[in-house]
Amino acid sequence: MSEIHVIKVGGAAGIDYDKVCDDVARLWDDGERVVLVHGGSAELNEISTKLGHPPRFVTSPSGHESRVTDRETLAIFEMVYCGKQNKGIVERLQRRGVQAVGLSGLDGRIFEGRRKDKIRYVDGPKTKVLRNDYTGKVEKVNKDLVTLLLDNGYLPVLTPPACSYEGDAINVDGDRASAELAVALRAQTLLLLSNVPGLLEDLEDPTSLVEHVPLSEMEGAMAFAGGRMKKKLLGAREAVEKGVVRVILGDANRDQPVQDALAGMGTVVGAAIGLPPGAVDV
Amino acid sequence: MSEIHVIKVGGAAGIDYDKVCDDVARLWDDGERVVLVHGGSAELNEISTKLGHPPRFVTSPSGHESRVTDRETLAIFEMVYCGKQNKGIVERLQRRGVQAVGLSGLDGRIFEGRRKDKIRYVDGPKTKVLRNDYTGKVEKVNKDLVTLLLDNGYLPVLTPPACSYEGDAINVDGDRASAELAVALRAQTLLLLSNVPGLLEDLEDPTSLVEHVPLSEMEGAMAFAGGRMKKKLLGAREAVEKGVVRVILGDANRDQPVQDALAGMGTVVGAAIGLPPGAVDV
Repeated sequence: MSEIHVIKVGGAAGIDYDKVCDDVARLWDDGERVVLVHGGSAELNEISTKLGHPPRFVTSPSGHESRVTDRETLAIFEMVYCGKQNKGIVERLQRRGVQAVGLSGLDGRIFEGRRKDKIRYVDGPKTKVLRNDYTGKVEKVNKDLVTLLLDNGYLPVLTPPACSYEGDAINVDGDRASAELAVALRAQTLLLLSNVPGLLEDLEDPTSLVEHVPLSEMEGAMAFAGGRMKKKLLGAREAVEKGVVRVILGDANRDQPVQDALAGMGTVVGAAIGLPPGAVDV
Repeated sequence: MSEIHVIKVGGAAGIDYDKVCDDVARLWDDGERVVLVHGGSAELNEISTKLGHPPRFVTSPSGHESRVTDRETLAIFEMVYCGKQNKGIVERLQRRGVQAVGLSGLDGRIFEGRRKDKIRYVDGPKTKVLRNDYTGKVEKVNKDLVTLLLDNGYLPVLTPPACSYEGDAINVDGDRASAELAVALRAQTLLLLSNVPGLLEDLEDPTSLVEHVPLSEMEGAMAFAGGRMKKKLLGAREAVEKGVVRVILGDANRDQPVQDALAGMGTVVGAAIGLPPGAVDV
């Protein structure tokens, strides 16, 4: 049985999903097993605004920013992520002859976790509490449905929301969900593709790309990671610590985004490309 | 192995999906095998309008009304049907402890058919042609994915769009798709639940319900069916002719909509309730 690759592609504006799907279809036709995970944040901001319910973000006392997800935001979230984005990607793959199947974390409870209905956030000098929120964190991946699909020739295309233990839809971080998924599937590779070329020492300078971060150098790398990138590194570290051979933070905007990332273009966390796990200090 | 019930619930305004899901969960817990299909037309009209792309309908020379489905409508269609409605139903079922899995006809090409990109319609005395439309008709049901899910304890929740032979998403009639699905799955029962109590001899008089339509009386029944109801009857006839024991046109707005319809409340097409197929003139 071939190795499994988990490929997460972000939801920033301007990402060319046709190119991503060209690459994914090529891998699939080569007999590789792939699970695709996607986001949709830029589209969500746009559609929420058009529907008269513009996005709101709060910052936790520890400095972490999150989207306020009330019930109405959740419905729009599902429209954008599970409707427009997910089916748009499934359609692109079907046009390329790939038997894709699009699912959210609610379906078969693929992504499960605790709902955090109260969120503490900072408002000037004060700490306030937001209630009735639908956010949470993936704590458990129920991989049975995903492997059932893979074993029967279907390519799973997954997206948040996840499912709380009580069955509520919850907004979760897609990168962390992908990391948990890669661990549960014992994936060889996890690609996190976004609209940056990888981890940069200097955000303003694309030539300052950090090409390789062994686990032993993770602390140092964290020092120059911004908010989103810090989350990606945390997810990457967690995945590698739990057995994923390597995580590659790649550029979704290249002509062959998946192929290039698999070849190591971007930031490789864990085992260097071409070396088996354990042969180097990961 | 228990019999399969295909339950289609329409997308008219005001339908209480909580009641539908209460009933479906009860059936499922009793060990029955259920596939749920849903619509979303009222919600689609509302969201399209809010997004500044209000619904447009055209009438074919043969008097059949259809929604103009350009590329932008299709994206909104997917948002409403595959996002908000589908995941809303999956969430309701997950809250009731049912392992639901929501899919569109694109996923695994469950519903497949020919795309009709040119539509002839009447405009006053003239017949005009609309181009680049994304509508079609389900000609083929690929049931493998549906039975794979059922055999592994998952309840499939299905919705249009379907998939064209070229892999494009296409808007299709949900009742007809459900009829084809029931045939492909050799379902015992197909329930078509909507916001009317069944076939009425007089649309204004809810006591004029036709309780039973054997196939032999179908032609007569067609005479007092309006546009939407005619489509349901056509789907019902097709399903019964191809082996589904009975189709029940039931009221989605009852307190126990599924249980009542299964007990025969509504219009029963095909074999009367309580009788096996063949024992009566279907």
